[in-house]
Amino acid sequence: MEAEKRIRPYIRHTPLAPKPNLTDRLPEALQLKLENLQITGSFKVRGAFNNLLSADPEKIKRGVVVASGGNHGLAIAYAAAKLKVPATVILPQNASEDRIKRIESWGAAVLRVGQNPSDAILAAEEMATTKELLYIHPFESETTWAGAGTVGLEILNDLPEVDCALIAIGGGGLISGVATVLREHRPDIRIIGVEPCGAPKMSAAISGGGLVELLDVKTIADTLAPRVASQSTLDTCSRLVSEIALVSDEMMVEAMRFLWREYNQLAEPAGSAVLAALLGGIVDVSAYKNPVAIICGGNAAAQPVFEAYAGGANALEPYTPALKRISRG
Amino acid sequence: MEAEKRIRPYIRHTPLAPKPNLTDRLPEALQLKLENLQITGSFKVRGAFNNLLSADPEKIKRGVVVASGGNHGLAIAYAAAKLKVPATVILPQNASEDRIKRIESWGAAVLRVGQNPSDAILAAEEMATTKELLYIHPFESETTWAGAGTVGLEILNDLPEVDCALIAIGGGGLISGVATVLREHRPDIRIIGVEPCGAPKMSAAISGGGLVELLDVKTIADTLAPRVASQSTLDTCSRLVSEIALVSDEMMVEAMRFLWREYNQLAEPAGSAVLAALLGGIVDVSAYKNPVAIICGGNAAAQPVFEAYAGGANALEPYTPALKRISRG
Repeated sequence: MEAEKRIRPYIRHTPLAPKPNLTDRLPEALQLKLENLQITGSFKVRGAFNNLLSADPEKIKRGVVVASGGNHGLAIAYAAAKLKVPATVILPQNASEDRIKRIESWGAAVLRVGQNPSDAILAAEEMATTKELLYIHPFESETTWAGAGTVGLEILNDLPEVDCALIAIGGGGLISGVATVLREHRPDIRIIGVEPCGAPKMSAAISGGGLVELLDVKTIADTLAPRVASQSTLDTCSRLVSEIALVSDEMMVEAMRFLWREYNQLAEPAGSAVLAALLGGIVDVSAYKNPVAIICGGNAAAQPVFEAYAGGANALEPYTPALKRISRG
Repeated sequence: MEAEKRIRPYIRHTPLAPKPNLTDRLPEALQLKLENLQITGSFKVRGAFNNLLSADPEKIKRGVVVASGGNHGLAIAYAAAKLKVPATVILPQNASEDRIKRIESWGAAVLRVGQNPSDAILAAEEMATTKELLYIHPFESETTWAGAGTVGLEILNDLPEVDCALIAIGGGGLISGVATVLREHRPDIRIIGVEPCGAPKMSAAISGGGLVELLDVKTIADTLAPRVASQSTLDTCSRLVSEIALVSDEMMVEAMRFLWREYNQLAEPAGSAVLAALLGGIVDVSAYKNPVAIICGGNAAAQPVFEAYAGGANALEPYTPALKRISRG
């Protein structure tokens, strides 16, 4: 696979984590693909490198522009910095300060446009046209999926007998790329998609027989919340995905807590969605011998943790406590 | 090594993480030993298994008792559950609810005694005597260090040319165990200990030529805050440790943020102390070819993250958004 060769020097082969501890709330055989430990904290960096490494060298010299308040922006900023490509990331005004700082720390230019993601997308497309820059959509292109598909290749390498995969659905790029790879090598595999019930753009499109635009989305899993899939991801999911499970915000928060307590992994809500489907009893994979759930992203808003510790930090530092010598023996 | 054979089936070989991203704030060659990904979130489980697996089988049938508000208690509770040994963990009244829940979820009995760790220790020792239970001190015994020393064996396995190691000091069990192993195989290695400046029980003891009891400790790194080392860890550190660096709470919080941003790892303050020493410029390892810093524990108080997400969760679930069908091309 071309994408695999292209991006391998730049990405991590993330680990499969077996069921770790003493819980009986998950099937014994379940393994988690910890893609939250990928560089930049999500699978998105795979597609980012695949796009930049296969683009027209002349165009790329002028630079790349993307619209994203999330993991796609982080991934492009990182890959562009690594490959010395000028990058611009366009975000909605309400994007989180933390993500902006991280994107800027990697040298990308940040622009804030409009109140919601579609404003940022329009601005990015316009800038790409007027300045002749490379524009990379977060999930629509086959180059992006092919990058995401390398997650599937790693799973096949580490667990050749994989017979069931749980994969979260935002715009559908990850599941399209991974399902394509897995079905090719394991035709009978069960592929289970997971969407927030407050952002069911793919399940509604499949059940309705055509693309839908959600007029409103309500979910804490911001990276699973596009209002519309794309025709190509819909076609691929219709063909390759066995079922789509819907999970609530509460189930995702519970799964985040579980993942932290049992695996010491802090994942974002989207990253815990697949576990939420299992813990919540929405899907049952107990019939499978080698099921894998992909923890797709780790970029939770962790600032409250650091703020709490900073608030408790000793303000009188450097501090030297009084002490008493203890005589030997 | 006996401990290695004994505990290997029960523990994880944790990964070495290379310098990941684009930061120039750390030496290029530095690798992090991610012991925060160990089962139960810290190296302590290595000593826990080594103690339980080498104890008198008759005594262990009656059970084990420990005093700990932190990682030692979690580790014993987990190892005891795995080995089907009855366990009691005695905590101070102010121990965190989250740790108590986790200990209880693994089937251990939890008792709350007194206001500070020494009250809990006295109670645990007394219970061990009256009920003839196994008592396991958090860092004093050689069996505990030998367990911790397997961290060093893994480092030697993965990076045989290791020439510098940074290791945090609580009571000194981890550094005693690891330094013993590393010096045996790499006599010229530089071993750097790191303590909070608000809890410098080991550096004060070494510089003063004998054990000291700190009359007060002030640090957010609760797992590095014993008031006194032990004679045996002091003797070992005096012999094997090259230098001890002191870090402030603020430096540890900054290192926690850095570790999250650059490595997607949430570690507790103790786990970030070694990085704090590097980022804060307290120690300089740029002269070394293969330096390793041990991230000793991951059990940060992450509850504020989950609470923030739970607060933002959609309360109207299950929620089905309105949608608009999009006609095909």
